[in-house]
Amino acid sequence: MKCSASCKLARHSGIALNLGVSLVFKTIQTEGIAELSYLLGDDDEGVGAIFDPRADVEVYVEMAREAGLAITHIFETHIHADLVSGSRELSARLESAKIYSSGEGGAEYGFGPEKIKDGDHFTFGEVLVTARHTPGHTPEHMSYLLAEADHPDEPWAVLTGDSLFVSSAGRPDLLGEKHTKQLAEQQFHTLRDFYLNLPDHVMIYPNHGAGSPCGADIGSRLSSTIGYERKFNKFLQFSDPKSFTDYAINSAPPVPHYYPIMKRLNAEGPKVLGNLPRVPALPPKAFKEAIDKKAGVLVDVRTMLAFGGGHISGALNIGGTPILSIWAGWMLDSEKPILLVMESDDDLERIVRLFVRTGFTKFAGYLIGGMK
Amino acid sequence: MKCSASCKLARHSGIALNLGVSLVFKTIQTEGIAELSYLLGDDDEGVGAIFDPRADVEVYVEMAREAGLAITHIFETHIHADLVSGSRELSARLESAKIYSSGEGGAEYGFGPEKIKDGDHFTFGEVLVTARHTPGHTPEHMSYLLAEADHPDEPWAVLTGDSLFVSSAGRPDLLGEKHTKQLAEQQFHTLRDFYLNLPDHVMIYPNHGAGSPCGADIGSRLSSTIGYERKFNKFLQFSDPKSFTDYAINSAPPVPHYYPIMKRLNAEGPKVLGNLPRVPALPPKAFKEAIDKKAGVLVDVRTMLAFGGGHISGALNIGGTPILSIWAGWMLDSEKPILLVMESDDDLERIVRLFVRTGFTKFAGYLIGGMK
Repeated sequence: MKCSASCKLARHSGIALNLGVSLVFKTIQTEGIAELSYLLGDDDEGVGAIFDPRADVEVYVEMAREAGLAITHIFETHIHADLVSGSRELSARLESAKIYSSGEGGAEYGFGPEKIKDGDHFTFGEVLVTARHTPGHTPEHMSYLLAEADHPDEPWAVLTGDSLFVSSAGRPDLLGEKHTKQLAEQQFHTLRDFYLNLPDHVMIYPNHGAGSPCGADIGSRLSSTIGYERKFNKFLQFSDPKSFTDYAINSAPPVPHYYPIMKRLNAEGPKVLGNLPRVPALPPKAFKEAIDKKAGVLVDVRTMLAFGGGHISGALNIGGTPILSIWAGWMLDSEKPILLVMESDDDLERIVRLFVRTGFTKFAGYLIGGMK
Repeated sequence: MKCSASCKLARHSGIALNLGVSLVFKTIQTEGIAELSYLLGDDDEGVGAIFDPRADVEVYVEMAREAGLAITHIFETHIHADLVSGSRELSARLESAKIYSSGEGGAEYGFGPEKIKDGDHFTFGEVLVTARHTPGHTPEHMSYLLAEADHPDEPWAVLTGDSLFVSSAGRPDLLGEKHTKQLAEQQFHTLRDFYLNLPDHVMIYPNHGAGSPCGADIGSRLSSTIGYERKFNKFLQFSDPKSFTDYAINSAPPVPHYYPIMKRLNAEGPKVLGNLPRVPALPPKAFKEAIDKKAGVLVDVRTMLAFGGGHISGALNIGGTPILSIWAGWMLDSEKPILLVMESDDDLERIVRLFVRTGFTKFAGYLIGGMK
């Protein structure tokens, strides 16, 4: 192989041609559901993991390819109540990755993930991942400590899932009233005995940011540190489980209707779609016939003002911003197909992604040309 | 204004329709020059700042628009030696932002930035920014503490510029031998008296990541914390200026030839281009004539192997990966126009961006159709 000018210069100057930086760590922020998932890997070794993928998984496939990583592990922090887990979908698309879910807290799954236990270790080149059982938001909840190979016992960060958030903590009341008290006490001990025992300098990377109904008043920063949260996070200021429990329950925002459905779906294992759901294109006449036949629930995703200016009689307006994912969960039944009215046909893929994230995969069609 | 279904639900359920998260904080990572610049703002107030923009500034304009921010401030941590500052370019494009550069350490500029002093405060909605003079890498170097309005005296992060890096620190030897000793001592005191006096939990966001010749062996994580660096960063383990100075000088990588040129350019104020440089498209015959007339330096940006397989006699090979920015700085004279051979014409914009970042804005043309 010939050595180019820059290659010769590299030899001469002692600068390595391979400027690979080994650690790859990226946050994937999904608005609306306010979810934070993570890509972690080592680009020297070419291996990596995804933590808590959302349902429309294309972003992870592309990001891993760009980073030069083969994803071998898909980790879940817990059985999500607020979004469809993309783990099975991603695993099917990649064909290189197994799913690792918590085997603690009596977790049962309707599919076959690898079950992990408190203390289990995983290595991705220079990056060490250690699973820690941190129940409270859910009984099986796992957090993941991240450390460098040089300092395996000194984590630089922890993926906190829905246990510790920036300025908040995961709510303990999503499994029904009879479990809430026990979960709140577990959360108290998780925060106090696990998180507050970590050094101040450890960074926290949670599964949710501001706007998620999984916690009260989650802060607007996407990450923080143990030390900063120790000082200012209200959930870390309690010294007894009773007052913590009262605060955790009373501060929690309303529970969206669709949460119990998500929980069951994610425990059973969401169906692998293989692609974004297809939505038949319907010309106005066919669209009207579909409405008349009650082929689906008529949902108009244009802005409130456009909807106010004129809409098809009987249509439900849910504006096509990212928060649509959550509104749809509140208002619609995922078993019933959707008839879609948009401003422009170009919006289709974006809108379908928003629906898919909270389990809406059935579409009876969209109105060609939209309404404008 | 009519209230849509989701609007009614919002009223009913007590969920705010405005899920704006106030703080916006994003890292813009530029490969090759291994630069990290930052967008900081408050999307409730709609105002924000960019720190240390690179020369091709489109990314900041787009990112600010996506985040719903008017950029009012462009901050520089120091007079860069390794890249062309995009501050003047960005200011000209935005028409809404002034440039804020250090007025400490005797800094002089050939243009008119606002000069800031140690302790100067800036407010962007919920975000407070405090400038701190942290000389060492350069005499005028500034770091910026970030705090929340609720806790103005308890920063959650510091933008460290080229003072403290992850696992490293900014080299003190870029202003010529006669300044090195004094700068190294200043860096010692900056690290010891400013950084090590911050609490462990404060996050650090530097101006460079792994691969930058501005520091020795910069770590692969993009951010870290004071506490983690206190433990493991070699540059923070010295208790006397003498041994620190020896280590800082001996560990520093070779200085690219173009560094002194960048330094002068950035102090004088890089010319505002208004757009990416135009590169005339030349058919093979015209391209050959341009070579014969010595209209420019012939640079072939294809891969080493393609170049080895066949190239125009006299061409210099600098592969078109992001590191091209630095190789060009080592090998080329920015006063001489470039005649460009690419694999495909589609590569043009990407390649031009790489050149612009280290001051190459003169192009005599590119070979239409490339070589493949």
